[in-house]
Amino acid sequence: MIGYAFMGAAHSQAWRNAPRFFDLPLTPVQQVICGRNPQALAAAAQKLDWRDTETDWRTAIARDDVDLVDVCTPGDTHAEIAIAALEAGKHVLCEKPLANSVAEAEQMAAAAEAARANGVLAMVGFTYRRVPAIQLARQFVDEGRLGTIRQVRAQYLQDWIADSGAPLSWRLDKTRAGSGALGDIGAHITDLIQFVTGQAITGVAGLTETFVKERPVATEFSGLAGTGGAELGPVTVDDASIWLARLTGGAIGTFEATRFAWGRKNALRFEINGSAGSIAFDLEDLNVLEYFDAGEDTRTAGYRRILVTEPEHPFISAWWPAGHGLGYEHAFTHQVVDLTTAIAAGDQPEPSFADGLAVQRVLAAVEESAQSGSNWVTVPTSGTEPA
Amino acid sequence: MIGYAFMGAAHSQAWRNAPRFFDLPLTPVQQVICGRNPQALAAAAQKLDWRDTETDWRTAIARDDVDLVDVCTPGDTHAEIAIAALEAGKHVLCEKPLANSVAEAEQMAAAAEAARANGVLAMVGFTYRRVPAIQLARQFVDEGRLGTIRQVRAQYLQDWIADSGAPLSWRLDKTRAGSGALGDIGAHITDLIQFVTGQAITGVAGLTETFVKERPVATEFSGLAGTGGAELGPVTVDDASIWLARLTGGAIGTFEATRFAWGRKNALRFEINGSAGSIAFDLEDLNVLEYFDAGEDTRTAGYRRILVTEPEHPFISAWWPAGHGLGYEHAFTHQVVDLTTAIAAGDQPEPSFADGLAVQRVLAAVEESAQSGSNWVTVPTSGTEPA
Amino acid sequence: MIGYAFMGAAHSQAWRNAPRFFDLPLTPVQQVICGRNPQALAAAAQKLDWRDTETDWRTAIARDDVDLVDVCTPGDTHAEIAIAALEAGKHVLCEKPLANSVAEAEQMAAAAEAARANGVLAMVGFTYRRVPAIQLARQFVDEGRLGTIRQVRAQYLQDWIADSGAPLSWRLDKTRAGSGALGDIGAHITDLIQFVTGQAITGVAGLTETFVKERPVATEFSGLAGTGGAELGPVTVDDASIWLARLTGGAIGTFEATRFAWGRKNALRFEINGSAGSIAFDLEDLNVLEYFDAGEDTRTAGYRRILVTEPEHPFISAWWPAGHGLGYEHAFTHQVVDLTTAIAAGDQPEPSFADGLAVQRVLAAVEESAQSGSNWVTVPTSGTEPA
Amino acid sequence: MIGYAFMGAAHSQAWRNAPRFFDLPLTPVQQVICGRNPQALAAAAQKLDWRDTETDWRTAIARDDVDLVDVCTPGDTHAEIAIAALEAGKHVLCEKPLANSVAEAEQMAAAAEAARANGVLAMVGFTYRRVPAIQLARQFVDEGRLGTIRQVRAQYLQDWIADSGAPLSWRLDKTRAGSGALGDIGAHITDLIQFVTGQAITGVAGLTETFVKERPVATEFSGLAGTGGAELGPVTVDDASIWLARLTGGAIGTFEATRFAWGRKNALRFEINGSAGSIAFDLEDLNVLEYFDAGEDTRTAGYRRILVTEPEHPFISAWWPAGHGLGYEHAFTHQVVDLTTAIAAGDQPEPSFADGLAVQRVLAAVEESAQSGSNWVTVPTSGTEPA
Repeated sequence: MIGYAFMGAAHSQAWRNAPRFFDLPLTPVQQVICGRNPQALAAAAQKLDWRDTETDWRTAIARDDVDLVDVCTPGDTHAEIAIAALEAGKHVLCEKPLANSVAEAEQMAAAAEAARANGVLAMVGFTYRRVPAIQLARQFVDEGRLGTIRQVRAQYLQDWIADSGAPLSWRLDKTRAGSGALGDIGAHITDLIQFVTGQAITGVAGLTETFVKERPVATEFSGLAGTGGAELGPVTVDDASIWLARLTGGAIGTFEATRFAWGRKNALRFEINGSAGSIAFDLEDLNVLEYFDAGEDTRTAGYRRILVTEPEHPFISAWWPAGHGLGYEHAFTHQVVDLTTAIAAGDQPEPSFADGLAVQRVLAAVEESAQSGSNWVTVPTSGTEPA
Repeated sequence: MIGYAFMGAAHSQAWRNAPRFFDLPLTPVQQVICGRNPQALAAAAQKLDWRDTETDWRTAIARDDVDLVDVCTPGDTHAEIAIAALEAGKHVLCEKPLANSVAEAEQMAAAAEAARANGVLAMVGFTYRRVPAIQLARQFVDEGRLGTIRQVRAQYLQDWIADSGAPLSWRLDKTRAGSGALGDIGAHITDLIQFVTGQAITGVAGLTETFVKERPVATEFSGLAGTGGAELGPVTVDDASIWLARLTGGAIGTFEATRFAWGRKNALRFEINGSAGSIAFDLEDLNVLEYFDAGEDTRTAGYRRILVTEPEHPFISAWWPAGHGLGYEHAFTHQVVDLTTAIAAGDQPEPSFADGLAVQRVLAAVEESAQSGSNWVTVPTSGTEPA
Repeated sequence: MIGYAFMGAAHSQAWRNAPRFFDLPLTPVQQVICGRNPQALAAAAQKLDWRDTETDWRTAIARDDVDLVDVCTPGDTHAEIAIAALEAGKHVLCEKPLANSVAEAEQMAAAAEAARANGVLAMVGFTYRRVPAIQLARQFVDEGRLGTIRQVRAQYLQDWIADSGAPLSWRLDKTRAGSGALGDIGAHITDLIQFVTGQAITGVAGLTETFVKERPVATEFSGLAGTGGAELGPVTVDDASIWLARLTGGAIGTFEATRFAWGRKNALRFEINGSAGSIAFDLEDLNVLEYFDAGEDTRTAGYRRILVTEPEHPFISAWWPAGHGLGYEHAFTHQVVDLTTAIAAGDQPEPSFADGLAVQRVLAAVEESAQSGSNWVTVPTSGTEPA
Repeated sequence: MIGYAFMGAAHSQAWRNAPRFFDLPLTPVQQVICGRNPQALAAAAQKLDWRDTETDWRTAIARDDVDLVDVCTPGDTHAEIAIAALEAGKHVLCEKPLANSVAEAEQMAAAAEAARANGVLAMVGFTYRRVPAIQLARQFVDEGRLGTIRQVRAQYLQDWIADSGAPLSWRLDKTRAGSGALGDIGAHITDLIQFVTGQAITGVAGLTETFVKERPVATEFSGLAGTGGAELGPVTVDDASIWLARLTGGAIGTFEATRFAWGRKNALRFEINGSAGSIAFDLEDLNVLEYFDAGEDTRTAGYRRILVTEPEHPFISAWWPAGHGLGYEHAFTHQVVDLTTAIAAGDQPEPSFADGLAVQRVLAAVEESAQSGSNWVTVPTSGTEPA
């Protein structure tokens, strides 16, 4: 694993726990963790339960006792590391967004395609796909419960920098993060809507805004929180991005990614309306999927609050009895389950790097639209809908 | 009152009940109701408690015993009736949308301006402004509880024609209704956001869609429901409209009006995020305003569910004890209260025809954007923000 | 109508509006309103739209132009007025609770029984039975959607005297009000549970508490709110009452009535669990009934939030389109509809005085249990379940 | 660890993960797991990550490499194992309920008291105390935010045997489980209310019911679910229990434990009303605490939905960023944190066996009341309130 911050902890937890609850075809071994600061790295290895450490990722991916490389670094390093790992014959799990630019993402998708011919597989970490309620949403679409999908509205609302005194972090620096709310959390709703509906976004009109242009330079960081000093530095990414979209199946949608919605902490919300029904989801209440069946009798119809904790629901039978909810981290465990299963079977794990590239192209189109006065921009596609 | 359908019933209820709960400076007398079908009109007069009837609106507005004309007809007739009434020296309450075109709305606003010089006053019926929770929202903005407003998201979601077998009504005919979801319910969220934030929309990128192009011609209608026959006719208005917007104060917003959101019956919802707090509202739970105060201690902060039924809340002291909620129709009663109060004082009632025109210009810009491939369109303004 | 305070206003509103929305077989005429203070009475008559006034209820009920007497006075006067009115051959609508003692209630039920033989009918005003969502709940039980009812939990939570500085009112005086939370709001949940389940409460173990023993004597009152002076007076009724119960059909239940639940304004809530499903209701969100169908597939099962505003729902077709919610007062209007319909048909309106007596017996059993150290007390019945 | 079923898995997960997120003063080693079926045991050891196995608990607790015994067996074996372990000088964590009878619980509390003198410590596993939102509730009470506590209403609603065809399990057998809903889930609400309020229950009036008297004998079991055969066996425990209570501080309460509330899966809910505010909690939405501050201005007051996921909230800083919710199992991890911290410091961990005994006495009083016709029963206390 390359990187040991927030995502490194979440991934380690998943590698450690997946075999305790699921019967995996392959048993993960947490062999080596890699970072640049030797002291912090040693502490992380101890805490996160890794056998060995490396301070140079090139050495790490070259090791014979490494079969899979888990890339948990900031987005500007994804392409170089992931491509090198694939070329070294290692399977790759790469955190989202796939890359900071479409060009890099294209190289990565090409590298993944080439590696696959050699039985080396790559997956991008759009982890929320494996929240059980979201899996159930996708099943409902597949089963035709929503009919023809007509409208989507997707929002990812946070407030962690709504305070204009919150310090600068690498996530607010365009050279490291690529973009702001758009690439960080807008990527999630883009992938999820494409995943759940099975449709690709074909065009957008977008608008981005940076409400707070300068912030204190951070002197210390832990997770998403930090402490700022007296010096100010420029915010070079978007605080919020909003866009309209059309999808391949004829649906239309509104999208919003923001870090400025006071009181919403991690509100990844979507509603999907089809000709036969509707669903609604909110990550702040992640064990629930709301569902309206338009075929019900008018007297008894209403949105159902499905508690997605039954053994019949995706991934649940491995966990606790009905009503004993899961948390944020469980989706990472499910990701390990599906990734190891795909590798053992020689199947392409999903979402693939091609799926990651598709997301990147949408985000790039939103940026292009925003920079051109919010005019409509067509999203180039490879002619294939996402899996 | 001209017209006696859904809106006619709601307005009659308001005229009849306002003096029973509020101390009005003027006592409304329900003098004459006007419609073209004499039989139906007589029944409506009896049911809705009007003293007299007229089948020609020109005669009705000319009567000496009429001081105020309440226009509850479809939008294509608003301009002619309202302007004639104002010229006849009658105060006017005109249902929304003000008109079916910007040109007509401009004429109406000009007529209202001219009439006002003679002490004749005009108001447009954006009734939802007078839902107590929405009045409270506006007060919170005025009191600075939200700080600088940064983002709005507004939706008006219904499902009354989500069934593709629902029949054609005048509301789906462009020549009568002007537009579909956009003008009918999109007008409401446009006015409300401008009212609550005190900011005007300056530009939009919009997209409209008609999902069901042909429907059975209706043979009978009652309220919003009807029965369709075998013959099909074209739907000439939008089923759903979505748009991005910028506002005068620097805020950005997403808007959506749709009649295709299965399971949402009358979900006029908005969220507003400012630098100091947030509010959220949903017309399906209309006695509630949610409020997040960013100044609260992190340990105890959370969205508050304010039940807007206290004597300290707008309009409530005239009604029932705390917790005894109001319904849809009460906002119409409050509209009568404010209108008669303004007339008695010789003040301009709000929303004025100029406010109605401002809404019309936004809707026209959304249509223009939608017709030009969703490119950005600037909204012309008179240089003044809405009251 | 005898009385013109909070309940007088609600009843007047109902008499005035029922014929405007419903086709009644009889047309109510608001002939005469009766109270002891001539000045306040005249103002009320004007405000509430009554033709004439009387300061002596005996004179009022003797008038030839009075066919029905609506008793809206405090509970200690119900028996005398209602019995006299029935004996004078007038139909009676009597506010709840029927009386302040079982003895009085028995006399009233006997008088109603006797009057009925002469075609004179009596009804007790458990108005909440006619909230559409509660009517729907009863229909669901009748249709077998809940199967055999096993458990009920019913609460009526308010907070209007949770502040220990809130002044004394007649509602806190045992000689006027009979009891406190128990008789005022406990009566409602008792009647509603018996109504919705169709089962009678057969025994109880109860406990009552007066948290604040002394309060400022009120100097002025309006609705439920008042202003207290320096003088303190004793609270002689319960602030909160809780009890366990068994029902005729084998169900068990918990009940709670309190005026001390800070933050709950009018939270009449109940949940009913049967062998085939469950329902839940909360008067603070009165247009909604929640319903769980145990027969649904586990994957898609969940509590449905039914918005009880469809034309197919009880009483709704007379009002507004779907999603345009009703308020507190509409149940009073529905009560007028059913009462006039029953009178026109010569049928016993429900709830009858016998139903009111059944409630009174339960409340008396709770008080007896509370006074005897919360031991079990059997509720005497007439051997008949409530209608 | 003795036992390896549902609770064994939850406890193992906690032992394994606690040191990965928290800095523990002692490092747990999962030394030996104990069960009677060697094959299942070996599989469990492998799955749950235990180094060694024993099929005789006496051998297990005698081992030198065991410092702490974690008792996860059915309630009828708790006393024997826990006392033996304490006498062998091993610290003990014993699952709830402490025992199946007050007599056993008294012996266990005495054994714990004796062991403590030797520095050997015992804790009972009322795990829900360590859900962050419940810890926050306790903090609010301690900080005086609720003022004097007046009322509690506590419910633990499940539906896992609401289907009368659900098979018999050891949990429905009085000789194994002691009681049904009462001891299993009623124990939780009893402990939690005593914990959060800091008050002890002094008396109860209770009522228990077994709705389904006979069920298919189970042929296979997994977690709480099983498969029944044709043979029927008697249910010897309560399906539902309800009771009224008084508390040491003058509060009154209603309690309900049921496995028959269709649609409620794990709804441990409580509301607490004090003189200065209220709180509400529901385990089905476990990252949330609702809070009403009676000191707020009436215009802005309302229940706040506090998302208990901030670094300032109990236990959260060790986990994920704000809004990234925890699940059911995390409370077990927190239990390990507090237990190891107490052991390292030589402090009594809470809840102690004395706390477990206090719960047992309440449950016994409820049973006694239920068997004596629901009359009032005083709960014997040791004269000390729970910690």
